[in-house]
Amino acid sequence: MNIKLVLKLVGRVLLLEAAALVLPLAVALLYREDPLPFLLAIAIVAAAGFGLSALPAKSQFFTREGFVAVGLIWIFTGLVGALPFMFSGWFATPVDAIFESCSGFTTTGSTILTDIEALPKGILFWRAFTHWLGGMGVLVLATAIVPKLGIRSHYLTQAETPGPVFSKLVPKQSQTSKILYTMYFALTALEVLCLKLAGMPLYDALIHSFSTAGTGGFSNRNASVGAYDSVPIDVIITVFMLLFSINFAVYFLILTKKWREALASDELRFFLSVVAGATVILTVANLGVYSGVGESLRYTAFQVASIISTTGFGTADFVLWPQFSQMIIILLMFCGASAGSTGGGMKCSRVLILLRAIRREIHRITHPRSVEVVKLDGKLVSEATLHTLLVFLGAYVTTVFVAALMISLDGQSFAVSFSAALTCVSNVGPGLEAIGPSGNFAAFSGLSKGIMSLCMIIGRLEIFPILVLLSPSTWRRL
Amino acid sequence: MNIKLVLKLVGRVLLLEAAALVLPLAVALLYREDPLPFLLAIAIVAAAGFGLSALPAKSQFFTREGFVAVGLIWIFTGLVGALPFMFSGWFATPVDAIFESCSGFTTTGSTILTDIEALPKGILFWRAFTHWLGGMGVLVLATAIVPKLGIRSHYLTQAETPGPVFSKLVPKQSQTSKILYTMYFALTALEVLCLKLAGMPLYDALIHSFSTAGTGGFSNRNASVGAYDSVPIDVIITVFMLLFSINFAVYFLILTKKWREALASDELRFFLSVVAGATVILTVANLGVYSGVGESLRYTAFQVASIISTTGFGTADFVLWPQFSQMIIILLMFCGASAGSTGGGMKCSRVLILLRAIRREIHRITHPRSVEVVKLDGKLVSEATLHTLLVFLGAYVTTVFVAALMISLDGQSFAVSFSAALTCVSNVGPGLEAIGPSGNFAAFSGLSKGIMSLCMIIGRLEIFPILVLLSPSTWRRL
Repeated sequence: MNIKLVLKLVGRVLLLEAAALVLPLAVALLYREDPLPFLLAIAIVAAAGFGLSALPAKSQFFTREGFVAVGLIWIFTGLVGALPFMFSGWFATPVDAIFESCSGFTTTGSTILTDIEALPKGILFWRAFTHWLGGMGVLVLATAIVPKLGIRSHYLTQAETPGPVFSKLVPKQSQTSKILYTMYFALTALEVLCLKLAGMPLYDALIHSFSTAGTGGFSNRNASVGAYDSVPIDVIITVFMLLFSINFAVYFLILTKKWREALASDELRFFLSVVAGATVILTVANLGVYSGVGESLRYTAFQVASIISTTGFGTADFVLWPQFSQMIIILLMFCGASAGSTGGGMKCSRVLILLRAIRREIHRITHPRSVEVVKLDGKLVSEATLHTLLVFLGAYVTTVFVAALMISLDGQSFAVSFSAALTCVSNVGPGLEAIGPSGNFAAFSGLSKGIMSLCMIIGRLEIFPILVLLSPSTWRRL
Repeated sequence: MNIKLVLKLVGRVLLLEAAALVLPLAVALLYREDPLPFLLAIAIVAAAGFGLSALPAKSQFFTREGFVAVGLIWIFTGLVGALPFMFSGWFATPVDAIFESCSGFTTTGSTILTDIEALPKGILFWRAFTHWLGGMGVLVLATAIVPKLGIRSHYLTQAETPGPVFSKLVPKQSQTSKILYTMYFALTALEVLCLKLAGMPLYDALIHSFSTAGTGGFSNRNASVGAYDSVPIDVIITVFMLLFSINFAVYFLILTKKWREALASDELRFFLSVVAGATVILTVANLGVYSGVGESLRYTAFQVASIISTTGFGTADFVLWPQFSQMIIILLMFCGASAGSTGGGMKCSRVLILLRAIRREIHRITHPRSVEVVKLDGKLVSEATLHTLLVFLGAYVTTVFVAALMISLDGQSFAVSFSAALTCVSNVGPGLEAIGPSGNFAAFSGLSKGIMSLCMIIGRLEIFPILVLLSPSTWRRL
C-alpha cells in the first residue's frame, strides 16, 4: 500500500475543496453574514491540504490504492464539509454537522435541521453546493481540472463513478472528466434559467438547481419544493430530476449525433418504463388522497421522479399515501437511477441484468442444452461482470439490513429503522413514518447518525471502496 | 413437455396423500368425532389419483418435467390438504382452508384460526401431520415407498429438497429417500418419547413432534408451546428444533461413524455460531423484558431456535421485545436453517457462501493478480454453482419484496406487509406487529391469503420450480 501517495492525493483534493469554499464565502459576504465559519474552514482545509500534498511519494498506484484513496477522500470530504456547519453554531453537535455534510456530498439530502429557513444564506448555499460537488464526484472534478495527478486517474474515477460499467467517453480520462463536468454545468445552468423564468428568486433557483443536479434534495425552504406551490416549478424540477438520472454517456452520444446508439440504451428504456409505470399506478392508487386525476398526477409524478432519481425533494408527503404506494416508494429507493448519472440506488442497469439473469436461470432449467447469454444493449455481459454485479447486489442488501439492525438500537419502529438504512445507502433522503418528507433525522442518537453518515458514503461509492478501506487484508503486505 | 407423465406422477402422489388421510380419520374415529370430512376427502383424492395415474404416458422425463411436476404436485397437495378443513365447516372460506393447508405442507405454520382449541382433534391432527409430510417432502416420501415411478427420480427430489447442493447419501435415489425418512421417523419418535416423559399428553406430544420435525409450528394450543409453561418441555423442543435444522447428511455421516467429516461441515459450524451469537445478544437485549438472565435466556433461546429453524412456535411474544431484538428476528428469518434439513429460509450455507464471495471480491480488488476460489467444507464451489446461488438470492429477495407489495394492497403497516411476505417465503410462521406470535393471519383479504399461500410454496420449493411452472418458455415446443 503506497499510503504516502494516497495521502498526497487526499491533500490535493482538500486544496480543491478549500477553493470550493470560496463560493459560499462570497455568498455570505454578499448577504452581509458572518464570514468567519468559511474563513476558518478554508484556513484549516488549505493548511491540511498543503501539508499532505507536499508529502514525497513514489508513483506506484494500482486499483487497491485507487479504492483506498477514494474511500479516504470521501471520509475527509464529509469532515471538511462539516467545518462551516460546526463553526456556524447552528448545529447542536459535531455529529449533526458531519451527518448534514455527508448527506450533502453523497447527495442523500436527509437533514437533521428542524427549521431550515432560520439558517444564514451562506450556510444554506454551501449545504446545497455540496450536492453539486458530490453529484458528479469530487475526484472526477479533480481529474478534470488537475490533469497531472501523476497517476493513472482511471483507477480513481472507476471507484467513484456509479454503475456497473464505467464507460469512458473518450480515451483520455481527464478529457472524459472535462466533458462530463461541462455537460453537468450546462444542464445545471439551464435549470437555473428555467426556474428563474418560472418565477423563482435567483438564490432559490441556484439552491434547487444544485440539489436537482446532484440528485440531492436539500432545499432552502422548510416545505421543500412544495413551498412554491407552482405547477411550472413542479414540472421543471420533475423533468430535470429525470434528466440528471440518465447516464451522461447518453447525452454525449446525442451531442456527437449518435442518436440511434443513444436511444438504443436498454437501461434508458427500462428507467423510463419504470418511471412511466410507477407514475400511472401511483396516480391511480393515490386518487383517494387527491381531488381528481390531474392533482394526483402532478404530485405523484413529482414524487416518483424525486425518489427514483434519489433526489428526495417533496411537494407531497407520501407518508400519508396508501401503504401500497409507500411500498412502491421503497422499491423505487432500492432500484434508483441509471449508471453513470448523479443518482444513487442499486441502478436500473443492475436491476435489469438481475432480472435477465433470473430469466436465463429459468431457461437453463427448461432447455438445459441451449447456451444462453445475458445481454445489455445487444452486447454480451461477461460472466465475470455478471458475477461482480450479483455479489454487489448481495453486498448492497446485506449492508441495508446490517445498518437497519444498528439503527434499530434507537428503538424506533421497524419501518423507520429499515427505511432510514435504505434511504441512506441509496442516497435518497426521506424515509417512512417519522422520517418522511415532512419529518427529519434530528431524533436519532449520535451513534445512529454516525452509522447513517457512513452508510451514505458506502452507498455513494457503491459499497466496495469502504469495504476495501476497512478490510484487514488491504493493509497486509503482499 | 411430457405433460401426461407429469400428470401421471401427480396422480401417484395423490394416491399417497389419500392413504395419508387415513391416519387423521383414525384419530377422528378414536375421539368419536365426525369422520365425514376425511371420508369425503379420501374419496375425492383417491378418485382423482386413480384417474390421473392411469394415464398412458411416454417415459421421457428430464429436468424440465421434474420442475413442472414438483411445482404442480405441491399446488395440488395444498388443495388436497384443504379438503378436510373445508368439509369440517371450521373454516370461513375455501381460501382460508387453502391458506392453512399450504401453511401446513410447506411447514410455514402461519394460521388464520383465532381459536385453535375449539377445533376437533382429528382436524388438528391432520393440520400438524401435514407439517410432518411436507417437512421431508412428499416426493422424497413417494420415491422412498414407490421405488418404481418409471422415471429417474433424481430429477424430482433435486427440485424438492432444500439447499444449494442436494447430496445423495447413497448412489440410489430410492435408497437415499428411505434412509432420510428412517432417520426422520426415528428423531420424531424420540421427541414424542421425550415430551411424553416431560409430562405432555400423548396427543399433544404427537402434534408438537410433527410440528417440530417439519419445522412447521402448528400447535393444538392457542398459546402454542407457551401453554405448558414448563422448562423441560421448552428445553426439549428447543433442542429438537435445532436438530431438525441440521443437514440430515450430517446424521448419516455420524451413523456411518464418519465423525470427523460430520463435524467438519462449514454450514453446521456457521449455523451453530449464529444460534449461539443470536442467543447471547438477544438474552442481553431482552433483559429489560424479563426478570433476570435465566428467564431471558429461557425465552430467548427458544425463540431463536424457533425462528432460525423456521418453526415458529412461541413461548414469548417477540413483538413486545425491543426493536433491535425484532430486527435480529427478521435477519434470522432471511437466514433460515441448513440445506438438506426440514427448515426454510435462504439457508445458512448460501448466506455463508455469499459472505465468502463478498470477501473474495474485496480481495480481488486489493490483490488483482491472486487467484482465489470460494470454498465450502474445504472443497471448491464451482463458478457455475456460485452463479446459480447468487441468482437464487436475488430471486429470493425480489420475491419477498414483490409479495410485500401485493400484500400491502390490504393497507396494513409496512412492518406487517413486509414481515408477512418474508415469513411466508421463508416458511417461518409469525411476523411483526399484528401477525406476531400472539396474532394470526385472519384479517388479511382473500387475495392476500392466496398470494401468501403461493409464496409459501414458492419458498418451500426454493423459488425456481414455481417460476418454471409460470414461465411461458417452459410450455413452448423445443
